Amino acid sequence: MDSKRLAGEAAVNYVEDGMLLGLGTGSTVYWSLQKIGELVQSGLRIRGAPTSAETEKIARQLGIPLIALSEVSELDLTIDGADEVNPDFQLIKGGGGALLREKMAASISRRFIVVVDNSKYVPALGQFPLPVEVVPFGWQITRRQISGFGCEPVLRQVHGSPFVTDNGNYILDCQFAALEAPEELHRQLNLIPGVVENGLFVNMADMVIIGASDGSIETKVNTGV
Amino acid sequence: MDSKRLAGEAAVNYVEDGMLLGLGTGSTVYWSLQKIGELVQSGLRIRGAPTSAETEKIARQLGIPLIALSEVSELDLTIDGADEVNPDFQLIKGGGGALLREKMAASISRRFIVVVDNSKYVPALGQFPLPVEVVPFGWQITRRQISGFGCEPVLRQVHGSPFVTDNGNYILDCQFAALEAPEELHRQLNLIPGVVENGLFVNMADMVIIGASDGSIETKVNTGV
Repeated sequence: MDSKRLAGEAAVNYVEDGMLLGLGTGSTVYWSLQKIGELVQSGLRIRGAPTSAETEKIARQLGIPLIALSEVSELDLTIDGADEVNPDFQLIKGGGGALLREKMAASISRRFIVVVDNSKYVPALGQFPLPVEVVPFGWQITRRQISGFGCEPVLRQVHGSPFVTDNGNYILDCQFAALEAPEELHRQLNLIPGVVENGLFVNMADMVIIGASDGSIETKVNTGV
Repeated sequence: MDSKRLAGEAAVNYVEDGMLLGLGTGSTVYWSLQKIGELVQSGLRIRGAPTSAETEKIARQLGIPLIALSEVSELDLTIDGADEVNPDFQLIKGGGGALLREKMAASISRRFIVVVDNSKYVPALGQFPLPVEVVPFGWQITRRQISGFGCEPVLRQVHGSPFVTDNGNYILDCQFAALEAPEELHRQLNLIPGVVENGLFVNMADMVIIGASDGSIETKVNTGV
């Protein structure tokens, strides 16, 4: 069975009637959405707050009742994917460019479940370049200051123009030689003027569900949040 | 003599030939600009990087050679005002809404001189509401999270619509009952998803020049930066 599907569907076991759900984005959460859609058709009553236009579209097609993320003050549960997860439940997210809304959703969720295939579960973060969302004005200054932390930030582009986030900002993809001390790095990056948010999620994930292509599934519970 | 003028002009004593200057914004820096303009007419060779459209306009009229802030990697000296300064050289800025560019300039300056009249020099910060620049999407969520730090954030408005910064963001003005531990608050605020930057400037000012209406002037040097 598809490893992403395995993880994505397993997370839906934690969905309960009446919940307000944060709906993440990506190819693993896709399978969570499909499963939630089935349950809604069978009578499950939930509402979902999508973190992207893409997820909103899929959820709408599946008949999942929606509410705007900006309208809610708390979520019972958010299910989302990640680009990398380490054994300390720290994540890199933002490959898709929606890191701010995803972090917003996670930050107001009583429970945050991360679903990944086992290729994303790594001993140390940083093979995947860390996305950092920055204000367009003076992004070169911001890039220079970020590079002081040991990486060579690259402006994300689409067809030769800067990629622009939903919030009108740019993304710098930062490949670190070694991404040590993610919590400290996360703090330091957000202190740089011009940095809006970065793709490190620390002390946020309550549970990580990892699917493997051999059909096995591993559920790791974070007791430290 | 006007206390703002006194402080604004005094800072120009630290301007030297050949410098790349960060030009702050506001009614005290206005007098610095006038003085710099005079010196340029007399042969001083400097270039100035303005932090706002307002300052750019004034500097242009005065014949000060300009360079875009986004084009420079380092400034020799930035002169800027503040809404409040405490004895620990911590500032609240952003009453004018340009806090991000001002902080960017200060962060790349080898020397950062703050000019104020004595009404702005206070034993403890927080009489002036702290401006926090936030992403428009989900600003209500961001506001709720900020309020957890002991304030009641108010969305800044102009003619009944949200005030929009040069970067397309909103400003929440945050009146704290007591603004204790500015450095810690500064860090915590920037960790909230949706917060772009806040008006606390800590460990940035090298010197504060305070003018008083009786014509006296006080220069405080920060030996701790």
